[in-house]
Amino acid sequence: MKEVVVNLPHERHYPIYIGPGLLAESERLRRHVTGTKVFVITNDVVAPLYLDQLLESLRGLDVYSKILADGESHKTLDTAATIFDALIAVPCDRETTVISLGGGVTGDIAGFAAACYQRGIPYIQIPTTLLAQVDSAVGGKTAVNHPYGKNMIGVFHQPVCVISDTDTLSTLDDRQLRAGLAETIKYGLIRDPEFANWLEANVDALLTRDSAALSYAVERSCQIKAAIVSEDECERGVRAILNFGHTFGHAIETGQGYGAWLHGEAVAAGMVIAARVSNLMGWLSSADYLRTENLLQRVGLPIRAPVELTAARLIELMAVDKKVSRGTLRLILLKTVGDARIVSDYPADVIKTAIEQLRDTESISAR
Amino acid sequence: MKEVVVNLPHERHYPIYIGPGLLAESERLRRHVTGTKVFVITNDVVAPLYLDQLLESLRGLDVYSKILADGESHKTLDTAATIFDALIAVPCDRETTVISLGGGVTGDIAGFAAACYQRGIPYIQIPTTLLAQVDSAVGGKTAVNHPYGKNMIGVFHQPVCVISDTDTLSTLDDRQLRAGLAETIKYGLIRDPEFANWLEANVDALLTRDSAALSYAVERSCQIKAAIVSEDECERGVRAILNFGHTFGHAIETGQGYGAWLHGEAVAAGMVIAARVSNLMGWLSSADYLRTENLLQRVGLPIRAPVELTAARLIELMAVDKKVSRGTLRLILLKTVGDARIVSDYPADVIKTAIEQLRDTESISAR
Repeated sequence: MKEVVVNLPHERHYPIYIGPGLLAESERLRRHVTGTKVFVITNDVVAPLYLDQLLESLRGLDVYSKILADGESHKTLDTAATIFDALIAVPCDRETTVISLGGGVTGDIAGFAAACYQRGIPYIQIPTTLLAQVDSAVGGKTAVNHPYGKNMIGVFHQPVCVISDTDTLSTLDDRQLRAGLAETIKYGLIRDPEFANWLEANVDALLTRDSAALSYAVERSCQIKAAIVSEDECERGVRAILNFGHTFGHAIETGQGYGAWLHGEAVAAGMVIAARVSNLMGWLSSADYLRTENLLQRVGLPIRAPVELTAARLIELMAVDKKVSRGTLRLILLKTVGDARIVSDYPADVIKTAIEQLRDTESISAR
Repeated sequence: MKEVVVNLPHERHYPIYIGPGLLAESERLRRHVTGTKVFVITNDVVAPLYLDQLLESLRGLDVYSKILADGESHKTLDTAATIFDALIAVPCDRETTVISLGGGVTGDIAGFAAACYQRGIPYIQIPTTLLAQVDSAVGGKTAVNHPYGKNMIGVFHQPVCVISDTDTLSTLDDRQLRAGLAETIKYGLIRDPEFANWLEANVDALLTRDSAALSYAVERSCQIKAAIVSEDECERGVRAILNFGHTFGHAIETGQGYGAWLHGEAVAAGMVIAARVSNLMGWLSSADYLRTENLLQRVGLPIRAPVELTAARLIELMAVDKKVSRGTLRLILLKTVGDARIVSDYPADVIKTAIEQLRDTESISAR
């Protein structure tokens, strides 16, 4: 088992445990449970696979659970309201620990519910998808979607620990695995050229679910994310680079209807657009742009914006992005592979140009 | 003008300005506006009185506003959802400043919306009721109600400043004024015996809205609250004493239906019950218990629980109180006037006894 620590002020550091068989390790789990009441939030895909195992590890505690419908389209304020109803029906007190068992959607909404119930109760993240293990379960961002903008409603609320049982990745379908690799690749692109090299050399091992390769990918991703979150918990500055590809990706997700594209898929296409913008700005070399596109394509991820969305529509959708500041959308761009920058000053039409170039060649965007 | 500062870690201290005519002091207000966009949240009672004046002070900025229906019954997640819709329709970015103009209900829900929109945007509190000026606008507690429990859904999110224009108290109806005095009296009871004496000596001046008396009451209340919040921002400990009378009060509010009793009225009756429990425990002397009851009665506040609610029902409603910890309800009790304690260890039936004693004499509870 590997342990990565997210360091935060006021002794709010917390561990991320990564390894096989962790769901069954009752003692570690219980060590992080405050009080004697636990409220598990999961979804209807994950529950049949892992809920019993989790409940077994929690035996002896006073355990309640709520099973949500799976999918991004359910990450709404209305679903959060049903969680509040369930928490208060128990009734859960401030010492109750919420446990999220599932992917990014489950973790985001469970975290939001824990953050807002009685002004904040503790929660544990048990991510069961690669995307959640490498990204969404770490760092305390919680949210639900608004019809007009992804993750528009949420707060920062850090978990007490993250337990990434890499065995759960075995039941992930290929599409989910690929979506998770998109965020993994993001870390290489924004912060770690060596990790980018490693990912290029290990695409096949990752796609065939080589256990050591997946574990290393999760661990290195968490190390990079933990370092950035420790520097800037509430995204006043550098943390924004974790959103590389996300401005375009969120616009694609919102535009296509939540759930049509997986988050990681939209981020992949978004990273290609962001890389193209970086290249048009004279930053990222054409060779590195193509390298980026090629790596994502080898993983089987979309590298073009969906045909249905025009450049004008995507730009309109981006107007509500959280990185808009005083009317200007800040972009996360690559100086080189491994070096991301936050940029407010760029030519007015560079986004439109990049999107249009990448829609022109839509024949290679087949998914 | 008086200024009280709430000191918080990480340079998050913020000022409370107290005095007449502050709504018209455009420069001070603008100094605290981040960015150029302002979103004012107010209600349909306050808007006709003070919205124009506020908009005048904001002239030149890009100002939007939303007018909510007045009253505790509208402090819901559904109302918050309509605010999110309005914020995103603008669209507001992270530099937008939310301004709450109104009483405690408006401030709580506007603060909650600001806390959750894009994971937190700045907000300014402009409280226009005595209750909001002395209590709810200060300290960063935001919330909406759940049908089964008051303030069950919320987060801590501190305002960037509080502007208490004491002129706005002139339009307050008598019932609202009395409700505000309940919280003012609370500060004397929990922390400051001299202030309790001062209040006893100045009840008539306060009820006739003597400007100097009201200003002093607001200032001293804010000083006491600011000191406690500075010590314990997120209510891990001492801050809980600010809830003196509130456990009983919230149960009354929930039980009667939100809005039937004003918050301050319910807190007044709740403080009498808490004082009685303190007295039954052998803490607060009978003389001081009667003194408390007498002061609240002189203000014209209810000093008995409503006839409609039995002790059993109130106790049931208190089971979801935020101060329940591991199945035990922590009470805020008075050792003496000016000295509140957080107590988990009390005889099982003392609450029931106190409530029943105070319902027996319901003839003096006429409101």
